Amino acid sequence: MIVRDLNEARETERLVNAEGWDSTRLLLADDNMGFSFHITRIHENTSHVFHYKHHFESVYCVSGEGTIEELDTGKVHQIRPGVMYALDQNDRHRLTTKSEMVMACCFNPPVTGQEVHREDGSYAPASAAA
Amino acid sequence: MIVRDLNEARETERLVNAEGWDSTRLLLADDNMGFSFHITRIHENTSHVFHYKHHFESVYCVSGEGTIEELDTGKVHQIRPGVMYALDQNDRHRLTTKSEMVMACCFNPPVTGQEVHREDGSYAPASAAA
Repeated sequence: MIVRDLNEARETERLVNAEGWDSTRLLLADDNMGFSFHITRIHENTSHVFHYKHHFESVYCVSGEGTIEELDTGKVHQIRPGVMYALDQNDRHRLTTKSEMVMACCFNPPVTGQEVHREDGSYAPASAAA
Repeated sequence: MIVRDLNEARETERLVNAEGWDSTRLLLADDNMGFSFHITRIHENTSHVFHYKHHFESVYCVSGEGTIEELDTGKVHQIRPGVMYALDQNDRHRLTTKSEMVMACCFNPPVTGQEVHREDGSYAPASAAA
């Protein structure tokens, strides 16, 4: 059994800081669960375009409020605690916060921890992440 | 993109009630994400033995407090908001709550929604779940 505490993990290299958000990877590919699990904080009043071309991601809002826009259609969904969205079509999307949002995120395939967000908003596939 | 609200999903067959807990399946196998995602509430002052012989599960505590015991070793871990445990060894475990716990759970392989907990605390594999 693996047991990890977010507050402790945030003091380690499991915490990845980016402009306007950070993400703490509580499970990564080398945990061999077949998915990775991250707690991501999106700062207040920020907006971000993401496009996971090589991963499916589900995102559950634990706290905070904002919107997600489907960039292919312009459709906007309100995000508040208890709302989950799942990018089952590798959907390009824009996340915009009103207040700081804390999100519980699952990725398949699991993130290795070596990925960086590329200029197009994607993570590289694991094979290109070295 | 799939968008689902916990409060709405709790009014549908996505909510599964059991003795001392319930679980709302926000993602199931037929969403084709490669994992399923559930919000599970464990009632206050209850204790449950679970053993997922055929699934890996990660569990992130959103709210509430309790303990998890590894039944093979007797080791006990405190669970509070921000703590995640992952059953990477199909670990048999006992979950005991002090207050109602709300947990964000990921399963691999994804739960189909047809499983029931068997007497031994496991979910049947999908092929035996009919």
